[in-house]
Amino acid sequence: MSLIVQKYGGSSVADAASIKRVARRIVETKKAGHDVVVVVSAMGDSTDELMDLAQQVSPLPPARELDMLLTAGERISMALLAMAISDLGAVSRSYTGSQAGLITDSAHGAARIIDVTPGRITDALAKGAIPIVAGFQGVAQDTKDITTLGRGGSDTTAVALAAALNADSCEIYTDVDGVFTTDPRVVKKASKIDFVTYEEMLELAAVGAKVLHLRCVEYARRFGVPIHVRSSFSQAEGTWVLSAQGVADAVKEGKLVEQPIISGVAADVKDAKITVVGVPDKPGEAAAIFRALADAKVNLDMIVQNVSSTATGRTDVTFTCPADSVNMAMEALNGARDKIDFESLSVDEGIAKVSLVGAGMRSHPGVSADFFSALAQAGVNVEMISTSEIRISIVTRADLANTAVEALHSAFGLDSDGEAVVYAGTGR
Amino acid sequence: MSLIVQKYGGSSVADAASIKRVARRIVETKKAGHDVVVVVSAMGDSTDELMDLAQQVSPLPPARELDMLLTAGERISMALLAMAISDLGAVSRSYTGSQAGLITDSAHGAARIIDVTPGRITDALAKGAIPIVAGFQGVAQDTKDITTLGRGGSDTTAVALAAALNADSCEIYTDVDGVFTTDPRVVKKASKIDFVTYEEMLELAAVGAKVLHLRCVEYARRFGVPIHVRSSFSQAEGTWVLSAQGVADAVKEGKLVEQPIISGVAADVKDAKITVVGVPDKPGEAAAIFRALADAKVNLDMIVQNVSSTATGRTDVTFTCPADSVNMAMEALNGARDKIDFESLSVDEGIAKVSLVGAGMRSHPGVSADFFSALAQAGVNVEMISTSEIRISIVTRADLANTAVEALHSAFGLDSDGEAVVYAGTGR
Repeated sequence: MSLIVQKYGGSSVADAASIKRVARRIVETKKAGHDVVVVVSAMGDSTDELMDLAQQVSPLPPARELDMLLTAGERISMALLAMAISDLGAVSRSYTGSQAGLITDSAHGAARIIDVTPGRITDALAKGAIPIVAGFQGVAQDTKDITTLGRGGSDTTAVALAAALNADSCEIYTDVDGVFTTDPRVVKKASKIDFVTYEEMLELAAVGAKVLHLRCVEYARRFGVPIHVRSSFSQAEGTWVLSAQGVADAVKEGKLVEQPIISGVAADVKDAKITVVGVPDKPGEAAAIFRALADAKVNLDMIVQNVSSTATGRTDVTFTCPADSVNMAMEALNGARDKIDFESLSVDEGIAKVSLVGAGMRSHPGVSADFFSALAQAGVNVEMISTSEIRISIVTRADLANTAVEALHSAFGLDSDGEAVVYAGTGR
Repeated sequence: MSLIVQKYGGSSVADAASIKRVARRIVETKKAGHDVVVVVSAMGDSTDELMDLAQQVSPLPPARELDMLLTAGERISMALLAMAISDLGAVSRSYTGSQAGLITDSAHGAARIIDVTPGRITDALAKGAIPIVAGFQGVAQDTKDITTLGRGGSDTTAVALAAALNADSCEIYTDVDGVFTTDPRVVKKASKIDFVTYEEMLELAAVGAKVLHLRCVEYARRFGVPIHVRSSFSQAEGTWVLSAQGVADAVKEGKLVEQPIISGVAADVKDAKITVVGVPDKPGEAAAIFRALADAKVNLDMIVQNVSSTATGRTDVTFTCPADSVNMAMEALNGARDKIDFESLSVDEGIAKVSLVGAGMRSHPGVSADFFSALAQAGVNVEMISTSEIRISIVTRADLANTAVEALHSAFGLDSDGEAVVYAGTGR
């Protein structure tokens, strides 16, 4: 008998009818002979509604109280889901994050899980019950105050519970059929990925695939939790996110013909490019720039330094950062002019980052050449380049992003025969 | 510096504007130099809305899950109230019943408080904060499951906390100015009572004064907690509910000219009268009837046995019980015909119980005579009579209830000069 952790997002439990549908699916899994632990998000838009209420009483509510308020959302959905399951004749009990042993630090609104002690969940399983656990929330180890985990919190709750319970898999239910080779809303020929490694999924998540959050995948990789991303609207297999060994085993077991070289292509238009013009080309100058930006908590992504002009002894330093950090970055640099020597700053918000991700590129040296050929043929100019072991990214004009993605998607043989089915809405 | 526990019902925190108004009142109390602990109910109709959701997913939801669901209501109101107080520059923190140490038995939906361990509340007070505690809820000592206290739960939470914290008083905020000598919606000349003993308040609550619940008054009497029932819409003094000694002290201190003989008159039309006709007049027959009713959990109120007819050797036994228990009572009696001998059953749902309550009637023997004279002059026929040390009740026709109440209210000098101000709505 296997143990499966199932996570359902807000859109899967948006109303009474959806909750009853999800309850039937959970009971079917139980009847098929599996132990099931369920993690659930707040119903549909209820988190937004609670945020609205908070704004009405205080423009800047204390983070502790905001967490207390928002955790009411999962309390409602989990109790209703347990009722719906009971109504089908199975035994179910709901547990808050605190009751389920999700121990966190005390960073309200973005708490990190530091321990999972699911004693009440294992007790419930031993009694044949289906435990329903509130996603997104925990209890602070030191203050005993209720915390929330921030973005992607419910997925992380599910993976953390799966790790602590040594579950056979963690099913993340969503409104799409799995993880796609690229955004199916943009590229009609996007294909569903059957198997992908944690490392590839991390790169895909970082460059804009929105199905799973980075921290949930990081947690799964650290504890080796197999993730199955699938649709709550169908019984079809979704995408398995596994270790490299897990994917290799799938090939051996014939579930997969061979491990694909490339798993996906993604575009991200949320970054901006800042150029620091005329920086003296001498040791310590770049360090001072990046120290000032780090102090302002600006997350840098790609960094390029031009070849120095021998005439002036000066060079340009260019970096990308989230577009909503541009003001902070500019203030930080202008505010540090007594320590940093430069001539001017220029900002370019019309950029896109296009990335190719694939664990197979490690052992296939031709990938870079094919990548740049495909872009050249499609008329996509490359402004910046950065690479990791399993990713190549370039910066180009934002209006060329889709052209670049489609060209790469075709060139690397990712185009599907049919059209991807896309559903609306996302959970938290 | 005194410590005041303040309880606000659902109608006092029905929306953002009400929450901000209550927050100002709390901060004013704090600024006046008092320590304040606040107990709050769920916002307005939110409990009903949660019940509706539960009904949509399951016609008969498990009591444990219903408690989990309903406790989300106070979680929302308490967090919002803490935010509103913080917004006014004071420090406030919200606590669930469990966090505040409200330890109960595991009778979901109607749990009883068995211990109060408010360590986190005293810590918060020591740090100068205003703790906001969820009313109506606790945590079961044995199962660690979340419980609700049932009707009057928030008032009971407030009194229990006041007792555990040794508070100077427990203020119960409502939408009327206090406890009245009779229902001001029926009798325009109803007067606000300034001081009343726990015993009188218990009798008044039992006979239909809906401002305070029986169990909250019982709890206050057991621990000697002074209750101050007052309006959240005005700064006027409301009604103090105290021990007999406390009321005597108020007279001594000149807060009250003298202790009134009569504190109130109430009518209750929710009872029905059942007559068991033709019961053999021999030992054990009445006991068998009341055993059958007790087994069916029918709460009896007044009981009368007629004088036996010497011709038949049979008598009639008449009792009153809540009208919604009539079917249960009839089934219990008909189902026990093998053990109980009687000729027939008759039911009368058109009755009213009218009661006069006053601690002073102990030492004023003329009260009964005045009581029946007033009823006779008003043309009110008396069908049954029962008395306690501080109460006289009669049963009459339901359509005479208001006539009886008005006659008694005038006869015992309770009529006020002005008209009572009545607001809409009630909390839980």
